[in-house]
Amino acid sequence: MALVVQKYGGTSMGSIERIRNVARRVAKTYDDGNDLVVIVSAMAGETNKLVALANEMCEFPSDREYDVMVATGEQVSMSLLAMALISMGYKAKSYCGFQVPIITDSSFSKSRIEEISDAKIREDLKNGTIIIVAGFQGIDREGNITTLGRGGSDTSAVAVAAALKADVCEIYTDVDGVYTTDPRIVPEATKLEKISYDEMLEMASLGSKVLQIRSVEFAKKYGVVVHVRSSFNDNPGTLVMKEDADMETVLVSGISYNKDEAKISVFRVPDKPGIAALLFSPLSHANITVDMIIQNVSHEGYTDMTFTVPRTDLKKALKIVEETAREIGASGVVSDANIAKVSIIGVGMRSHSGVASKMFQVLSQEGINIQMISTSEIKISCIVDAKYTELAVRVLHEAFGLSSSDVAVE
Amino acid sequence: MALVVQKYGGTSMGSIERIRNVARRVAKTYDDGNDLVVIVSAMAGETNKLVALANEMCEFPSDREYDVMVATGEQVSMSLLAMALISMGYKAKSYCGFQVPIITDSSFSKSRIEEISDAKIREDLKNGTIIIVAGFQGIDREGNITTLGRGGSDTSAVAVAAALKADVCEIYTDVDGVYTTDPRIVPEATKLEKISYDEMLEMASLGSKVLQIRSVEFAKKYGVVVHVRSSFNDNPGTLVMKEDADMETVLVSGISYNKDEAKISVFRVPDKPGIAALLFSPLSHANITVDMIIQNVSHEGYTDMTFTVPRTDLKKALKIVEETAREIGASGVVSDANIAKVSIIGVGMRSHSGVASKMFQVLSQEGINIQMISTSEIKISCIVDAKYTELAVRVLHEAFGLSSSDVAVE
Repeated sequence: MALVVQKYGGTSMGSIERIRNVARRVAKTYDDGNDLVVIVSAMAGETNKLVALANEMCEFPSDREYDVMVATGEQVSMSLLAMALISMGYKAKSYCGFQVPIITDSSFSKSRIEEISDAKIREDLKNGTIIIVAGFQGIDREGNITTLGRGGSDTSAVAVAAALKADVCEIYTDVDGVYTTDPRIVPEATKLEKISYDEMLEMASLGSKVLQIRSVEFAKKYGVVVHVRSSFNDNPGTLVMKEDADMETVLVSGISYNKDEAKISVFRVPDKPGIAALLFSPLSHANITVDMIIQNVSHEGYTDMTFTVPRTDLKKALKIVEETAREIGASGVVSDANIAKVSIIGVGMRSHSGVASKMFQVLSQEGINIQMISTSEIKISCIVDAKYTELAVRVLHEAFGLSSSDVAVE
Repeated sequence: MALVVQKYGGTSMGSIERIRNVARRVAKTYDDGNDLVVIVSAMAGETNKLVALANEMCEFPSDREYDVMVATGEQVSMSLLAMALISMGYKAKSYCGFQVPIITDSSFSKSRIEEISDAKIREDLKNGTIIIVAGFQGIDREGNITTLGRGGSDTSAVAVAAALKADVCEIYTDVDGVYTTDPRIVPEATKLEKISYDEMLEMASLGSKVLQIRSVEFAKKYGVVVHVRSSFNDNPGTLVMKEDADMETVLVSGISYNKDEAKISVFRVPDKPGIAALLFSPLSHANITVDMIIQNVSHEGYTDMTFTVPRTDLKKALKIVEETAREIGASGVVSDANIAKVSIIGVGMRSHSGVASKMFQVLSQEGINIQMISTSEIKISCIVDAKYTELAVRVLHEAFGLSSSDVAVE
């Protein structure tokens, strides 16, 4: 008998009929002899409806009250699932964040989980009750309702699994697992049997929407084995877990892309200490995240700086940067929103050289110009013209041998 | 400076625009220098939508989960009102039942309030915050979400007012106050300036829907002055309060009617001790409330029994009664759903005789046959043919001098 934590996303909970399907899947896991804690998202569309209502009331709704409001989405879906299970003859009980309790800090709408008490849940599990916990929400130490931000239910699930020392945390979603790349672009993309926490983290931060970044950080920190799988079939999905020997033999595990950034270049920046701080502090104060930064070698006391920001922040960022540029005496500012970031990820590249040069070569063979490069131990990202995104993903997927079921091993 | 509790019903909270109106009214009360606690219902229609969702999931939803679900309606409306106030520049904070906390017993969907803690609210009031509390909901001592039953927000408001020893509890609704009778039937019905708790209790239990019965019981128990008034204008409404000398001088304060009952008669019941228990115990076990009961004088060892039950329970009740009737050897059972209960209410009738006979006389003059009679210290109810309801209400309203603004005083 195992202790299983399952999480069902908004699409899986999208209608009464789908919630009934979830109930049947939950019941089967229980009948197989497992203790079971289920974390649910709001029914698809519900959170958006609530957000729209808040925005109809005022342009900038109070953070605290916004969380009070959007937390109701999960409260509704969890009670529906509990009702379904009870009507099928099972013992089931729903828990809001405050009832567990799931204690978070007080950063409304992007709270971080600090502590989860397992006492009440364990007591209910002992008497054979299936526990349904509202994802996405918690309560701070002053008793205020908080939420974890979009996709927060993944983090709820992993955190609950960690607190309960569950044997596995199954994340049910509308895809079959984690793929080598987006199957909409590369039909030959293959599902990964397993992937390391670090690779999954890179994938999540580079644009893959399968798991919320924070949930992966949590899983890594507490060693929770996460099984990403589909709620619409019984296929095995992808295990997100500690790195093992197999994984290191694979050079590249996946290809990600992201079209949500824009590029800003500042020309002829006087090259002296503190100039980067002068340029980026105002952006940070305005809550604009700067991703890649490139500073050219100085030439006659001047340098060029190029960096990327979220495309939605481009206008705001440009206004700020143009002002700073004038102040520091730079010669000009240009921007480009037509870019994409294409990345290859793999723990295997830590112990192998030549991965980067192969990537550059493959892109160059297709005539794709690389505008910026950024690397980490286990990933390489290139900024390219947005129109080449799909082409770049396809050729890299092919070149690194991800398209067939026997993944390239060196 | 006073401490004011205001309650806004579902119609007053029915849309974003209406909630903005409520916010303006709340702000005005605050600007006038009052401490303010506001209790809100769910937006009109929302609770019904949630109930429909639960019923779509299963025929008999779990009581506990049902409460978890329907409690979200108030959580949404309270956060919207708080957002509106905050965007207007006021300090405002919403409280779910569990956050106050409003402790109830564990009778899900019809819980009774046991205790309200005023500590957190008082602290927030002290720093000038307007408090918004979700009506209708509470939490039991095990930490389960509970609800108080339909109209429960009235009770929440009165109970919060009692706990805080508020100076007044204003119940904002879609009518101007408590009328001598239903203005849809008698256009000359007049608004009562004040009414005693006992009269209001009788009115509520006899069909008036202005206030939930339990809220009036609470107000009476703790001496809370309740001001029933409209959220759509500034007219003074009706004060529900302790009986005073003025009230005793009025014979009849109001006329109520109720078309929700049905009549069952059992003929030739053997008249021996215990026969009433035999007849009514099975109904009570089936949770069917018996209202009026009449037993005729015994004749040759047999009697006839007539009683009323909620019309919605008639079919179920008949089945039970017919079985019992066979068992005890009664000769037959007949029923009639075409009845109405018309009642006159007034604390004045306690100290005056002749009110009942006047009522019977007035009805008889119009050819209205009285089928059953029931009296208490401060009310007289008659069951009549349903088709005479409006006529009976009109002639009684006229006869007891309620139609003019100077109410008949003896």
